[in-house]
Amino acid sequence: MSFLRGSTNYVWCTTSVLGKGATGAVFQGVNKNTGEQVAVKTFNQLSHMRPHDVQLREFEVLKKVKHENIVKLLAIEEEQEGRGKVIVMELCTGGSLFNILDDPENTYGLREEEFLLVLEHLTAGMKHLRDNSLVHRDLKPGNIMKFVRDDGTTVYKLTDFGAARELEEDQQFMSLYGTEEYLHPDMYERAVLRKPVGKTFGATVDLWSIGVTLYHVATGNLPFRPYGGRRNKETMYYITTKKASGVISGTQSSENGPIDWCRTLPDSCRLSDGLKKFVTPLLAGLLEVDALKIWTFDKFFAEVTETLSRRLLHVYNIHKVRSVRIYVHPEDTYRNLRELIREQCDVSPDDQIILFNDKHLLETVDENTSCKNYPQTEENNPIMLFSNENNNVTISVENDVPKLPTFSNLVDVENDASVAKTICSIGHVCKWRVETLSLASKLTHDSVRTFAYVVKDELTRVLAKTSRLIEMTKCVEKTVDSVMRAQKTVHSMLGVKTTSSSNNWKEEMETVSQELFHGLSPAIKQLCLRYVTHNTLTKEWEKNTNGCKCCWQTKAPQRARSSVQKLRESWQHMIRDRATRNLTYNDNQFHVLERMKMDVIGTSLIKSLLEREVISSITQIADYLADWYKMAQTIYLQGKILDRDADVYSQRLDKFLKNMEDCDTAFHDDLVNVGLIKPIPRHGGRIKGQDMRLRTSIREIHSVQDEINSLLNGNSQLVNQFKTISEKISADCNKH
Amino acid sequence: MSFLRGSTNYVWCTTSVLGKGATGAVFQGVNKNTGEQVAVKTFNQLSHMRPHDVQLREFEVLKKVKHENIVKLLAIEEEQEGRGKVIVMELCTGGSLFNILDDPENTYGLREEEFLLVLEHLTAGMKHLRDNSLVHRDLKPGNIMKFVRDDGTTVYKLTDFGAARELEEDQQFMSLYGTEEYLHPDMYERAVLRKPVGKTFGATVDLWSIGVTLYHVATGNLPFRPYGGRRNKETMYYITTKKASGVISGTQSSENGPIDWCRTLPDSCRLSDGLKKFVTPLLAGLLEVDALKIWTFDKFFAEVTETLSRRLLHVYNIHKVRSVRIYVHPEDTYRNLRELIREQCDVSPDDQIILFNDKHLLETVDENTSCKNYPQTEENNPIMLFSNENNNVTISVENDVPKLPTFSNLVDVENDASVAKTICSIGHVCKWRVETLSLASKLTHDSVRTFAYVVKDELTRVLAKTSRLIEMTKCVEKTVDSVMRAQKTVHSMLGVKTTSSSNNWKEEMETVSQELFHGLSPAIKQLCLRYVTHNTLTKEWEKNTNGCKCCWQTKAPQRARSSVQKLRESWQHMIRDRATRNLTYNDNQFHVLERMKMDVIGTSLIKSLLEREVISSITQIADYLADWYKMAQTIYLQGKILDRDADVYSQRLDKFLKNMEDCDTAFHDDLVNVGLIKPIPRHGGRIKGQDMRLRTSIREIHSVQDEINSLLNGNSQLVNQFKTISEKISADCNKH
Repeated sequence: MSFLRGSTNYVWCTTSVLGKGATGAVFQGVNKNTGEQVAVKTFNQLSHMRPHDVQLREFEVLKKVKHENIVKLLAIEEEQEGRGKVIVMELCTGGSLFNILDDPENTYGLREEEFLLVLEHLTAGMKHLRDNSLVHRDLKPGNIMKFVRDDGTTVYKLTDFGAARELEEDQQFMSLYGTEEYLHPDMYERAVLRKPVGKTFGATVDLWSIGVTLYHVATGNLPFRPYGGRRNKETMYYITTKKASGVISGTQSSENGPIDWCRTLPDSCRLSDGLKKFVTPLLAGLLEVDALKIWTFDKFFAEVTETLSRRLLHVYNIHKVRSVRIYVHPEDTYRNLRELIREQCDVSPDDQIILFNDKHLLETVDENTSCKNYPQTEENNPIMLFSNENNNVTISVENDVPKLPTFSNLVDVENDASVAKTICSIGHVCKWRVETLSLASKLTHDSVRTFAYVVKDELTRVLAKTSRLIEMTKCVEKTVDSVMRAQKTVHSMLGVKTTSSSNNWKEEMETVSQELFHGLSPAIKQLCLRYVTHNTLTKEWEKNTNGCKCCWQTKAPQRARSSVQKLRESWQHMIRDRATRNLTYNDNQFHVLERMKMDVIGTSLIKSLLEREVISSITQIADYLADWYKMAQTIYLQGKILDRDADVYSQRLDKFLKNMEDCDTAFHDDLVNVGLIKPIPRHGGRIKGQDMRLRTSIREIHSVQDEINSLLNGNSQLVNQFKTISEKISADCNKH
Repeated sequence: MSFLRGSTNYVWCTTSVLGKGATGAVFQGVNKNTGEQVAVKTFNQLSHMRPHDVQLREFEVLKKVKHENIVKLLAIEEEQEGRGKVIVMELCTGGSLFNILDDPENTYGLREEEFLLVLEHLTAGMKHLRDNSLVHRDLKPGNIMKFVRDDGTTVYKLTDFGAARELEEDQQFMSLYGTEEYLHPDMYERAVLRKPVGKTFGATVDLWSIGVTLYHVATGNLPFRPYGGRRNKETMYYITTKKASGVISGTQSSENGPIDWCRTLPDSCRLSDGLKKFVTPLLAGLLEVDALKIWTFDKFFAEVTETLSRRLLHVYNIHKVRSVRIYVHPEDTYRNLRELIREQCDVSPDDQIILFNDKHLLETVDENTSCKNYPQTEENNPIMLFSNENNNVTISVENDVPKLPTFSNLVDVENDASVAKTICSIGHVCKWRVETLSLASKLTHDSVRTFAYVVKDELTRVLAKTSRLIEMTKCVEKTVDSVMRAQKTVHSMLGVKTTSSSNNWKEEMETVSQELFHGLSPAIKQLCLRYVTHNTLTKEWEKNTNGCKCCWQTKAPQRARSSVQKLRESWQHMIRDRATRNLTYNDNQFHVLERMKMDVIGTSLIKSLLEREVISSITQIADYLADWYKMAQTIYLQGKILDRDADVYSQRLDKFLKNMEDCDTAFHDDLVNVGLIKPIPRHGGRIKGQDMRLRTSIREIHSVQDEINSLLNGNSQLVNQFKTISEKISADCNKH
């Protein structure tokens, strides 16, 4: 018997099964003309027994839908030898979400990026159905396919419209489809419990299925789990219908035991807290049995759109040695970001030092920049968060890796394969821990480097500012000297003693500049010498962490990955053994070797790599970080203080200069007023009587000057008179 | 018959062959106690017929060597059922270099990083042999194994010491081993041509084999290729023995045709020019038939060590839209780097603008920093090179991808597999082109961003400098005003007209400051407004390249990789078909489909992706870059000029201030000299007669002052005399 079958343009091999369902199977095939790979859905006898319109419905629906997130229909052809119609669709090489969730990698749910893709694509596909007034009625992970594009990116696509039908707005449908765990409670009651219910099922039943699917994708588990699973139908119905609003899971862990209700996602879920914040209410809105409370499709769509429009900012919180993910609204600004950081990192906005790419984030964006225009952050190039106020570092390493199961003494292919899969799941958990902690180790080193760099930069900037102030001060000093000398000259010419006012300026200048020359400048120079030239912060860190290898550097994540890869290979070996069922003696020997290998590798992964190497190293690094930051933060704050001091000094210098000018202007004005000199055209500047003391002493000078002035007045005339007179007198005397 | 065999601690399956040789085979096995995977070498009948000491030699050699780059001996055990000794070694999962070179990915040689690993590890392994006075005598790609560490890194290791023996220093050996293409000509003559030669074979025969191996690894081809290959033994001998020194390859491309000698590596070789520079002389030194000219082992080891100690710096040359690799000596400094850049990029050192991480490289390192302390560059984060002088951009896209072969009309599994492999080779070439050009496209965008950033940074810096100069200038102006007013006051008191000298200062100050206020400051402000605030450079680039998608962004490399992956899958399919030999009708149908797929994918890869998409896009981007850089370079230079102007201005201001002070001091000194005022303690500063004109005019004032002075001298006395006299006269007059 040949396994090859075909239609006009396609061939497929019945050995390449992609999936099997109640009404038929899907095979991998190729286009005879182009070699293009496709999926071919064939129908079995049972399917042909359905009413003709039901059979046609799937074709009709498929022809109607056309969307990136719905598996594309390529052709409907007649199979050779009159076996009936086949549906040819694009091939989704990634398999279904059911297969993906079944992989031990996803025992605790998909990772965040993948979860978001499912959320986005599932929602977009649903939107398209909704826009075409269609209900799917059989949404579940098995009907969501992973399509891998040529560029390696993933698209999830809805498939299997065997249960779908058109739905006029508000029209309800009575026929029953669906896969029980994903069914809306009302449909479940009718279909599984086989109770005749008078209820009609709105299109929102799809929403419930999406809720169950998303919970499954997020956690790796179904949300509602009666003890004993599927067979415990009454409890299942009880859980789904009696659950309170806001509850997103109900688990029964013993026969007839109580239900453990939960309003949050489990700790084992791989989604970040930042995302859980948005996903939890979404799940609660969908897993709502009360018809009046369950979200409408529009609400669902709007909420998902809002969540997906958010922008992910990676933040590394050094105080907890932990990466966090912050989903900001695109229009959020710095203020909002700081609030969101406070929420997740417990550092109050005023205390946050927020660095990015070796700078303050505010050097790259400003207070009002929308987050949508923020630079791209990456998991290993995040925003770094430090606290101004707190210099503690506390790391909490969850060491709750599930215990490794052991193989039974005797070989049991069925049980061994299952144990092997569990070991793989645990291996994956270990691997993530190793990855997370190693990344934290790398980011700790990076953050130290960044902080040291920023401190150096700030100190250099303050030093430059101080140098500039020194130049300015010298210039002002020269002005003081000139003015003082000029006034002294005037006094000297007037023959009066220079009053204290001029010396006051000089002294005041010295008082002012002393702060710069004896305080600010040497202080910043010393800091710069130590922390810029000698690079002490970086050196201290390097010296302290010298003996402690960074597990990122020692490639711990790669080693963890390679261990998990080996575990998976052994697991695959056991799956093959399970399929063989009866092992030969040799096969048995190799089977035992694989079990041994898994024990050795699994234990070494948890005990040696994760616990003895990675956890102990990151704990030590956290200790070093705490010590180092105590010092670094002090230097940072010293720099800040000197910076502020420089600004205060700069203002004081300005004020001093202004005062002195005013006084000098007043002095000259007075000289003009008393008629000693002609007015000098004034160069802009009203006179403010700020230094009254100086003004007063100048007044005193002037009263003396007035006297001298009256003496000098008409001097030449007197001299001339005197000459004439003295000549006269001389003549007179000579006469005598 | 069972395929399972074993020794005390190991089992292996004779179906898992890793390699086969003349004296035995190597299988993959496992340790029965730990599950550890190993390689087990067993010996065949032929091997047992060798003299006993020869048989023992391999064990002895293996026990003696212990090095990271030599395959580790785990155990020598007796095989069960008295089959003789087996050698248990660590398993090298990457296979041999022979297998690696046989992959279509490596048809044109290994990529640079991998080549360097082979060079390093092969040399280190050889060094260890040499240190233990051992010759390998059968060095060839098949005896160099790739070991993949748990962390994913690669180690190459020497294996197969079946031909090795101990060699006392300078001892020669006469026995013959080796694989003919890699044999030293003398050994070739004896072993292949079977001529009795009186020559003795020094340990340097290993060096020749290393030369041939390295050429093979670098290019994917043997260096000496007679037409017809191996069978043309006389020509082979002719080529190797008659080649001139410095020639590293000789190829005969027709029966009895001429030999095409070559002293350089072929263009198809994937090594960079930067590395070829060191590899070519190395090959020439090893592939040297003249016993007096061939490198000694010490020379070889020293040269390799020197080459490997060099540090790779990635440089992106925007003028050729091309990445280059520069291997610097660790002690090289900036000057050497610039020379090496000139060598490869054709931009003279003085014209080079060298940027890295959005800064001038010289902001990160200084002129004397050793290159070993330079920051890490990456292929996609290179040093960016721009020219100060030249603003041309010329891209030369090699579009010499070999033509795709076509499958014969009839299915021929042998030929088809071979054609499929060639298509894969070409696919890989295309993929590299796409990767290289897409990276160039990304780096072009990056370099534009970097350059724009640096320009903004410089302009901002110049603006800050200018602002500071404005502050300084205002301060100096105030000093001028004060001094001028003071002198005027003195003049006014002296009742003399203020001479032109004071006004000259004022005017000169205005002349000086005009340059700042009317030239420098508005110019830099305008530039800043346009290029910092309005970000015009970036915007212009974005506007111009708006319609042209960057092939890095459109994931062209990922798509090329996925095409090549598909080609490889089809090739693998054909290899399976070749192994099957007789295809069923169905198999034949699928075989034809695979051929079709390869045609479609191969053509689309070359025509659509590489030519129509990637090459046309990068060509367009190069045009945009040329236009953009013409503008950007102008702004850059304007910034530089304004910066220099600011420095010149700053110096001029200093000089002006100094002059003025000197003059003022001289003025006051003169006042003291003429006795008008008492000396004022001087505040440091010798007087330089710089402004003679001013001094002269002051002298003029003083001569007038002298007159006034003599008039004023004894003034009070005169007045008193006058009073006395006038009273007397009055009295006299009254008497009269």
